[in-house]
Amino acid sequence: MDQTDAIIPDRALAETLRATAHALADLARPETLAHFRVAVEAENKLAGGFDPVTVADRAAEAAMRAHLEIARPDDAILGEEFGPKAGTSGLTWVLDPIDGTRGYISGTPTWGVLISVANSDGPLFGIIDQPFIGERFVGGFGLAETTGPMGNRPLRTRAPRPLAEAQLLSTFPEVGTEAEGRAFHAVSKQARLTRYGMDCYGYALLAAGQVDLVIEAGLQAYDLQAPIAVVAAAGGIVTDWHGGPAHNGGRALAAANPQIHAEALAILSKFVD
Amino acid sequence: MDQTDAIIPDRALAETLRATAHALADLARPETLAHFRVAVEAENKLAGGFDPVTVADRAAEAAMRAHLEIARPDDAILGEEFGPKAGTSGLTWVLDPIDGTRGYISGTPTWGVLISVANSDGPLFGIIDQPFIGERFVGGFGLAETTGPMGNRPLRTRAPRPLAEAQLLSTFPEVGTEAEGRAFHAVSKQARLTRYGMDCYGYALLAAGQVDLVIEAGLQAYDLQAPIAVVAAAGGIVTDWHGGPAHNGGRALAAANPQIHAEALAILSKFVD
Repeated sequence: MDQTDAIIPDRALAETLRATAHALADLARPETLAHFRVAVEAENKLAGGFDPVTVADRAAEAAMRAHLEIARPDDAILGEEFGPKAGTSGLTWVLDPIDGTRGYISGTPTWGVLISVANSDGPLFGIIDQPFIGERFVGGFGLAETTGPMGNRPLRTRAPRPLAEAQLLSTFPEVGTEAEGRAFHAVSKQARLTRYGMDCYGYALLAAGQVDLVIEAGLQAYDLQAPIAVVAAAGGIVTDWHGGPAHNGGRALAAANPQIHAEALAILSKFVD
Repeated sequence: MDQTDAIIPDRALAETLRATAHALADLARPETLAHFRVAVEAENKLAGGFDPVTVADRAAEAAMRAHLEIARPDDAILGEEFGPKAGTSGLTWVLDPIDGTRGYISGTPTWGVLISVANSDGPLFGIIDQPFIGERFVGGFGLAETTGPMGNRPLRTRAPRPLAEAQLLSTFPEVGTEAEGRAFHAVSKQARLTRYGMDCYGYALLAAGQVDLVIEAGLQAYDLQAPIAVVAAAGGIVTDWHGGPAHNGGRALAAANPQIHAEALAILSKFVD
């Protein structure tokens, strides 16, 4: 399907997709929480040798796919655990049942369930859900909002500030290949503050106006599509490290506004092909 | 006061101190949350030029000190924001109203309010409170438990496993001085997994049996006393990098059990004086 054929949902379809995405997030919560913060010793014999995070990952994706089979049987599915399912509607559900599995197995509250629905141009609507905190970040179809311990709030990215005053997040300091690491640290050296360890929660904080940049590499499409939808709906920009589309995975530069995006891009693009 | 004079609270006093510590944590919550995740632009003119985290830090510590003036007037206080207050009871309240201010200003859910009460030997009871999640980790006077989104649960550190299978947390990859950084990374290189960015929440995860080690440097007494109480009550060990006491600050090696403590200590102690 070429770009001019991309499905643009009307208002009724958008509402259906939005409600379906929330239903998927609701279904994933108990599955991911059932194995979170358990004593790993007690769980090691579970499910034929799988570790708890694999069991939770698969159970959450299976629950979401079972719902889609009934609610949206003609849509395609791209899931981390069970691979692609073809569809006929021109819409694809992109599911990462536990983004941040290393955070999950360490008990941190920064992993998330990533759910998005895309047409051939990229994600239309996305959810970053953090089941332990009970916090959900939503963006697309004209909406950008979060629901959690502090209630329901709009999401809006930060106003421009120079890189020297900016806050930058990534998941781990190695970032990716050696060249990718050098590129990242060239930006980091100029930023006011760099923090690690946030997994997909970093994109949620960017959408919520708390930080200026999230920069990562080595990502899959299912790692990025929901964050792209949420960040874009909140006023931000996500591209690869040359300013091209990021929704197929790889390197991501997520920025609060065009000014800080341009400043970071000018540095990153010099270091990588 | 020498060691043999250290006050050992009887059961009634322990119950009073425990209830006072919880009251302090309850008082700090609204003060820290009042300025969390606000749009920094909107707050910059607050309180005569102070940034939101400084305003929240001071308001939380002031609320806790005001309560102690009434509830425990003879106890000493060591607070991050307003310094030491002398006492006559032999007990000292050690308060860090926002541990992890850089996490706080980035909107992460891993900062915490640290509250402990110590005699001259070190902390007797401590609380690590995370107001945004609504999660509290408590240890001392025979108790080690957490209350939060998953209810009330006992805290117990992990059973021994080799360093090669261990999970290690720290707040940022530089750790401290260059020598301290080298020491840390010598341990990290042998561990199965290293994660950053957790602030005081890392000690809570250690107490909850989720990770094996937390290693940090450049700490103050008020950064460590509550974590020491919680980790020790849950079965873990916190020392400096030579196996000595850590409750006066500096370098911390927090371990789930004596075996992993010894393995990490053997490496760390070779790198620093």
